[in-house]
Amino acid sequence: MVIKPHGYAIWEKIQRDLDARFKNTGHKNAYFPLLVPQSFLTKEAEHVEGFAPELAVVTHAGGAKLEEPYVIRPTSETIVGHFFSKWISSYRDLPLLINQWANVVRWELRTRMFLRTTEFLWQEGHTAHASHSEARVEVLKMLDVYSDFCEQVLAMPVVRGIKTQTEKFAGAVESYCIEALMQDGKALQAGTSHDLGQNFGKAFDVTFDSADGEVDYVWQTSWGVSTRLIGGLIMTHSDDGGLVLPPRVAPVHIVIVPIFRKDDEKERVMAAAHRIKDALAEVDISPAKARYRDFLEVVIDDRDMKPGAKYYDWEQKGVPVRIELGPRDLDKGQVCAKMRVATAAGSGKEFIPEQEFISGVRDRLLKYQDELLRLARERLDSSQVEIDTWQDFERHFEGDASTFAWCHWDGTAETEAAIKEKTKVTIRCIPLDGQGPAPEPGLCIFTGKPSSRRVLMAKSY
Amino acid sequence: MVIKPHGYAIWEKIQRDLDARFKNTGHKNAYFPLLVPQSFLTKEAEHVEGFAPELAVVTHAGGAKLEEPYVIRPTSETIVGHFFSKWISSYRDLPLLINQWANVVRWELRTRMFLRTTEFLWQEGHTAHASHSEARVEVLKMLDVYSDFCEQVLAMPVVRGIKTQTEKFAGAVESYCIEALMQDGKALQAGTSHDLGQNFGKAFDVTFDSADGEVDYVWQTSWGVSTRLIGGLIMTHSDDGGLVLPPRVAPVHIVIVPIFRKDDEKERVMAAAHRIKDALAEVDISPAKARYRDFLEVVIDDRDMKPGAKYYDWEQKGVPVRIELGPRDLDKGQVCAKMRVATAAGSGKEFIPEQEFISGVRDRLLKYQDELLRLARERLDSSQVEIDTWQDFERHFEGDASTFAWCHWDGTAETEAAIKEKTKVTIRCIPLDGQGPAPEPGLCIFTGKPSSRRVLMAKSY
Repeated sequence: MVIKPHGYAIWEKIQRDLDARFKNTGHKNAYFPLLVPQSFLTKEAEHVEGFAPELAVVTHAGGAKLEEPYVIRPTSETIVGHFFSKWISSYRDLPLLINQWANVVRWELRTRMFLRTTEFLWQEGHTAHASHSEARVEVLKMLDVYSDFCEQVLAMPVVRGIKTQTEKFAGAVESYCIEALMQDGKALQAGTSHDLGQNFGKAFDVTFDSADGEVDYVWQTSWGVSTRLIGGLIMTHSDDGGLVLPPRVAPVHIVIVPIFRKDDEKERVMAAAHRIKDALAEVDISPAKARYRDFLEVVIDDRDMKPGAKYYDWEQKGVPVRIELGPRDLDKGQVCAKMRVATAAGSGKEFIPEQEFISGVRDRLLKYQDELLRLARERLDSSQVEIDTWQDFERHFEGDASTFAWCHWDGTAETEAAIKEKTKVTIRCIPLDGQGPAPEPGLCIFTGKPSSRRVLMAKSY
Repeated sequence: MVIKPHGYAIWEKIQRDLDARFKNTGHKNAYFPLLVPQSFLTKEAEHVEGFAPELAVVTHAGGAKLEEPYVIRPTSETIVGHFFSKWISSYRDLPLLINQWANVVRWELRTRMFLRTTEFLWQEGHTAHASHSEARVEVLKMLDVYSDFCEQVLAMPVVRGIKTQTEKFAGAVESYCIEALMQDGKALQAGTSHDLGQNFGKAFDVTFDSADGEVDYVWQTSWGVSTRLIGGLIMTHSDDGGLVLPPRVAPVHIVIVPIFRKDDEKERVMAAAHRIKDALAEVDISPAKARYRDFLEVVIDDRDMKPGAKYYDWEQKGVPVRIELGPRDLDKGQVCAKMRVATAAGSGKEFIPEQEFISGVRDRLLKYQDELLRLARERLDSSQVEIDTWQDFERHFEGDASTFAWCHWDGTAETEAAIKEKTKVTIRCIPLDGQGPAPEPGLCIFTGKPSSRRVLMAKSY
């Protein structure tokens, strides 16, 4: 996978906002080695079992065969455990709240751009705590950071829940996740937050002297989101015209397409285009209290192409606002603006006095951001169904069909595997309180055995 | 190498400022794969010869032996060339100005923290142009970006020059560099900018239709700086008390150490500490016209330790300003401030009215930044010598001794190798105009053959 500039710029905006959220919650960034001694992986039994099939192994380096091979990190719990054992000795060293922005490699046979790639970019949080309860608070806090980020920045609503034991992270006690609905009805696991218990503490001998003078293993968490979020963003908002980008992650907010027939019009139109661009580029759309600045990014498209071809191009790229700027509108002191998607923030071509457009553009874009979230929420709401019989379930998920389905499940791995085998549908999560339909007991859709609450089922990426 | 939070925070500040400079000069970030098919490396003869001894090779992945091994990128010219050949077809696609922030691996037998590590973090610019002259403008432009950044942000003065053919980047036509003086008199190559000519264009068949309708290979450049800059920063400014950090890259600008004997003093002192911290945290020290915000980072050190131990700790970390805050100073409405290094921006303990300190802190820190540069410049100026006889040269560089030495050289690789073999001194660069002593002809220090100008010689890291 190569990430071209337009895609990478989205990732940079994702990084910047998430990074500020991590720092606001007390985390510090650090960097751990890419290459992990192979023996580290084997120290946690479930972990190596889960990741061994996906490892890329360095056997030769510096012109010679290595005595011990290294693996390229598929995730960093093991190397982090190794260093945490050096850094932590007392309860005074806890909590230790670390995040890393990095690349990881998991060998995949079937890849899918942004969603499943052999190498991907991500962040991985790694924290160590003096008690299990404190670690659990951290796990849920970061899940909330993710879900709030997905909704407020990506305009992508999510369902929060717990993975089944089958689907949890290899080496975790419990894995929490956020699941997003793609427009084809499939689910995307958009982020995970793991309660690692003392599993890695024991594997890497990460002990601390407690305030009571006892020696105990630390309680750890890890949590991550990746460039997969770009895939989720694309499949949440896009339409037949191409990408649709919420302003908070749009690399370009406004494109100005100058329109002129004769050379004597050109100078005047281009001068106006630059005047408007300069004014717009001063508009600050930073989130409230952000310690970074987010100004409007404005492009004048003066390529030697027909305007229609330019419109098509920028629509495909998902730019929120297009301005068509010609002599006639300039005569009237107005601009012709068009939003990428028709919403309450604007629809069709609008002719707006130049100053009014400039002074109103911030509100317009923030409204557009809200509208994209509202539309995505509507799709999520209308996708969710409750299914109670196996016959309906099979019919609902026939062929490639999928939506979010809330169903009763008897809680066994056998039933989970059988449903997956017959229909390709998986249990996406056991919802947290407040997610999905209110808990009520029922009968497993497959075995008819008792179930305490519905779980979220869907086909997935 | 693991980069702990304090070091990584310095890297983040370096990244943020450099990234803004790259964008201001028209570059866009992208991301290319970590793993490069081994065959790619062999396409450029000099390149593979230079890098083959340092490669880490992935031979197994996904549980099987690979048909073709992959190497972990030691640098990305080859994989970039591969993609540029797909992206570029016409002069309209040029110039293509790309930057990548990434990790690279070069197997090193003797490593040295931050300076020479098997894995390091860096940025690598890769650009393609329609003519050699345009590419050369780019090479020098980015060298200037680096030298300005080193001086204005790291407060580390550099000498700009051209590498000898022996020392140039493997695969380049010419390599330009910036060389910084470390306090032990050795030189550090702090950044490089390469004129790649058409070498990689030919190796990867990167052609374009010119405006005249001819087909030609693109002219490429590449340029990079790395986490090595952190090593340079440390060895430029540190003293016996530990790190000394210029405010522009300091993760923490001000530490407040609350001092109280009795519990009833504690509440009052802590309240004042938070009041002062909140006021200072609003102070914006962003560079003029920066499109990012840089606020003061302030820490209250309320650990259960003696004040002296805290002072020692924060001095080691290089924090520019320490405030000691006790009841007596609060009674007088003043703070006791001390700069990490005594300069014209402040020396010794100063007692300053609280409001005056807060309103003056921005100027004080910017002045301190300038002073650290001035001190480093003084060290550079006083280190530079001109040496004219081999006897003096050998004496000057006896044992571990080193300074920057300007000497005549006959321009041959043989002489360069002989000098290096006898004294471990290398030719750091052939200076650009305006760097080092004014050009005047002379005789090679080693062979006595004619030389048109002095070059920079020193031992190096």
